[in-house]
Amino acid sequence: MGASPGPGVDRRERIRLAAVDLFAERGFRGTTIRAIADRAEVDPALVMHHYGAKDRIFSLVIRESMRPESFLPDVLAGSEEKLGRAFLRAFLVRWEDPAIRPLLLGVFRSSMEHADASRMFREVVSGEVLLPLAVRLSAPDSHLRAALVGTLVVGLVTARYVVCASPIAELALDDVVGLFGDYVDQMLSGKPAVDGAGDDAPAG
Amino acid sequence: MGASPGPGVDRRERIRLAAVDLFAERGFRGTTIRAIADRAEVDPALVMHHYGAKDRIFSLVIRESMRPESFLPDVLAGSEEKLGRAFLRAFLVRWEDPAIRPLLLGVFRSSMEHADASRMFREVVSGEVLLPLAVRLSAPDSHLRAALVGTLVVGLVTARYVVCASPIAELALDDVVGLFGDYVDQMLSGKPAVDGAGDDAPAG
Repeated sequence: MGASPGPGVDRRERIRLAAVDLFAERGFRGTTIRAIADRAEVDPALVMHHYGAKDRIFSLVIRESMRPESFLPDVLAGSEEKLGRAFLRAFLVRWEDPAIRPLLLGVFRSSMEHADASRMFREVVSGEVLLPLAVRLSAPDSHLRAALVGTLVVGLVTARYVVCASPIAELALDDVVGLFGDYVDQMLSGKPAVDGAGDDAPAG
Repeated sequence: MGASPGPGVDRRERIRLAAVDLFAERGFRGTTIRAIADRAEVDPALVMHHYGAKDRIFSLVIRESMRPESFLPDVLAGSEEKLGRAFLRAFLVRWEDPAIRPLLLGVFRSSMEHADASRMFREVVSGEVLLPLAVRLSAPDSHLRAALVGTLVVGLVTARYVVCASPIAELALDDVVGLFGDYVDQMLSGKPAVDGAGDDAPAG
């Protein structure tokens, strides 16, 4: 990223790409700093210098796989009543892409297998996906509403792409959006989410 | 289970308990037939004789952790309008139990980490949890409705117990049931789930 990459930037990018590959292939537990360094053809000390610990690299790879900046701005620019449905579709469109799905699947599986990985996943999803969504809402319990949507969407990703449960996994994307869109819209802009429970609690 | 266990039954039970422990501790990939045999103090051939392959033992451990027979009959005996909420509460009550949660968590994490494990998880959840729920419904699209509920509940388990996302993870159980109960009831007994998509498709 940025202009005029020197040799240092180049190696940093190689490390990033190696990490993306390895987490998708081997999961969180199966990926080591040394394996990332070997694949990037650099010294492990350089990996540590640029990124610190394994969980910090993993956090970067989660961002890389989800790229909220690639779909959230358009979604948030739309009308609030249709926000849920638009968010759902935009989020799933990345999963439907056969060029992106293996990476997302590797990251998602890795995120579930170890508590450290789960923590990084939670931070990225809460801070960079659900927080912008909550901020866009006019409802007072907006963070709770965004968390409800996050819960449903994680279940949908699990059922459709990870566990491949029938019939959710076989439906066309339009049918999935049709099936779940009303619920997501309702969660974001329907009646108050709940009486008194967790009102406006931070989504972090 | 059963009367008068002989030495053969006793070893079989030891194998089962060893498998439960190991999958919870080490996950699906990290558990081998040999490790199960070592922990049960039997020959690996005996593990194969009683249970066959690793995925068959894992399937048994999934059942062992969820025990649908311990809560489904009561839930299904209740009124259809409140079925969703009753199912949600009964399912989560097992997760709230500190004596059971580590086992469920180990099984859930294992189920996400490898495609073979995901397949066993899908078979147990679809066949032994969602199918009885679908059969209890009078709606024509009952299997699809049960699959919607399965999707939401898997998301809830992920958010609350695996990823520990705020505020879902911190809420009292009653608040969780209050937050999601309406959606689950609506999925099971509200208006037709969707127009034409996957009507009455088998939940297997």
